[in-house]
Amino acid sequence: MYEFDEDTQVFELGEDRYRGEVTARWNVGPVPNGGYLLAIGLAAMGRSLAAPDPLTVTVHFLKPARIGEIIIDVERVKLGRTFSTVMAKMSQGGVETARLLSTWGDLAAATGPTRMDATPPELPRLDRPPPAQIEPPIELARRFEQRLAPETLGFLEGKTTERAELRGWSRFADGRPPDVRSLALFADAFPPPVLNWSMVGWVPTLELTVHFRARPRPGFLGCAFRTRFLIGGFLEEDGELWDESGALVAESRQLALLPR
Amino acid sequence: MYEFDEDTQVFELGEDRYRGEVTARWNVGPVPNGGYLLAIGLAAMGRSLAAPDPLTVTVHFLKPARIGEIIIDVERVKLGRTFSTVMAKMSQGGVETARLLSTWGDLAAATGPTRMDATPPELPRLDRPPPAQIEPPIELARRFEQRLAPETLGFLEGKTTERAELRGWSRFADGRPPDVRSLALFADAFPPPVLNWSMVGWVPTLELTVHFRARPRPGFLGCAFRTRFLIGGFLEEDGELWDESGALVAESRQLALLPR
Repeated sequence: MYEFDEDTQVFELGEDRYRGEVTARWNVGPVPNGGYLLAIGLAAMGRSLAAPDPLTVTVHFLKPARIGEIIIDVERVKLGRTFSTVMAKMSQGGVETARLLSTWGDLAAATGPTRMDATPPELPRLDRPPPAQIEPPIELARRFEQRLAPETLGFLEGKTTERAELRGWSRFADGRPPDVRSLALFADAFPPPVLNWSMVGWVPTLELTVHFRARPRPGFLGCAFRTRFLIGGFLEEDGELWDESGALVAESRQLALLPR
Repeated sequence: MYEFDEDTQVFELGEDRYRGEVTARWNVGPVPNGGYLLAIGLAAMGRSLAAPDPLTVTVHFLKPARIGEIIIDVERVKLGRTFSTVMAKMSQGGVETARLLSTWGDLAAATGPTRMDATPPELPRLDRPPPAQIEPPIELARRFEQRLAPETLGFLEGKTTERAELRGWSRFADGRPPDVRSLALFADAFPPPVLNWSMVGWVPTLELTVHFRARPRPGFLGCAFRTRFLIGGFLEEDGELWDESGALVAESRQLALLPR
């Protein structure tokens, strides 16, 4: 069993109530990654629904999660023929840590028109051996094989750059192919690009929304994250995830806070 | 009393339960605008909270609303010193039409660092008389004075353009100055930019998220909306709202559907 599947599985406790186990393998410092928690929440939602794919999910983080049991209560808000909307509360020790709102459907049935006005981000070539990169002492980073564009890694050398951007390829280190649900984790698993503007240790997320646009093919995901507006300490972080075939598979945006 | 305040006011029916009245003044065809409904929902949330400003709100539209009474049930998910999170159900005739999730705080207390990597969009000059523009037969459009960039209005002449973009200035026609809550309406009150790619009558929104970044100064709002990815009939629409002083006041993103 792959790490991601083992660490995001949920067990039914009762109707629309599930138990998961937050492991330390997806930590950034002492805190489990938000995208990892979101992936657990989506696992519970998927169990309560017949629809195969999340199309959009928003999570509001209420307090940092911790290692151990997590209870997910799903509310089926509206079950429709094409779209179904669900809400979920994630709680630890009786205290809610995150609230989720999501609409599900079937991405395989998305057969309407396609037109794109953007191309995949500029990424390192995969057919060349990657340059040695600093191994960050972060547990989360060990779960992925990442090939980051060096020009977006100024912060690792204590430099600031004009753009608060991070680009690179990423895939699970244990070979698990990406699927739709795992994109929620990939959307939050890079270092915050705002580190290229301001070296802080910790950029807590208030809210994260992911739009799931296509089922990814096996292989690396090409990821680009960028912050354009840091205003009074609040910042947005916009992400694009592409698969190796050049298909956009997810867009993400989060509202986060730069602590003083 | 201004139209917006009259048409989005809510009356308390009980603890965290409010009654509003959806009027026909914000219709697009037979359907009330989604941003207008969102502004009613935010009015109810604001009544249940001590925090002055929404910082982020996500709404999932479950079915088209109609003219008449609307009931808003607010759940105070978490009340914190700095941030408070609330959920709301909006119902008509006992059937839920929209579900909202929002985190509130105080934008005046956002005194952290500011750094921007983008400038306001290219907009028509306000010191010149606006060119005559087609008055669309849409009730919603009568609520605003808009000065749209002509190069983004190809769809009005049946032309398609390379970019699915709409840019322009907008303010309430009756002189009401914009405030934070009204930005939720402005974020959804332009025609969909995807009309410049595909002439359809109706682009239903599944989900809309607005990040409120600053309190707007009185005057016009400079608005830019753009769709980059139409995939299998699903599209995102990204918006930026700026005030006349050149401050970014809101970012929006919605997931919408292009019907066949």
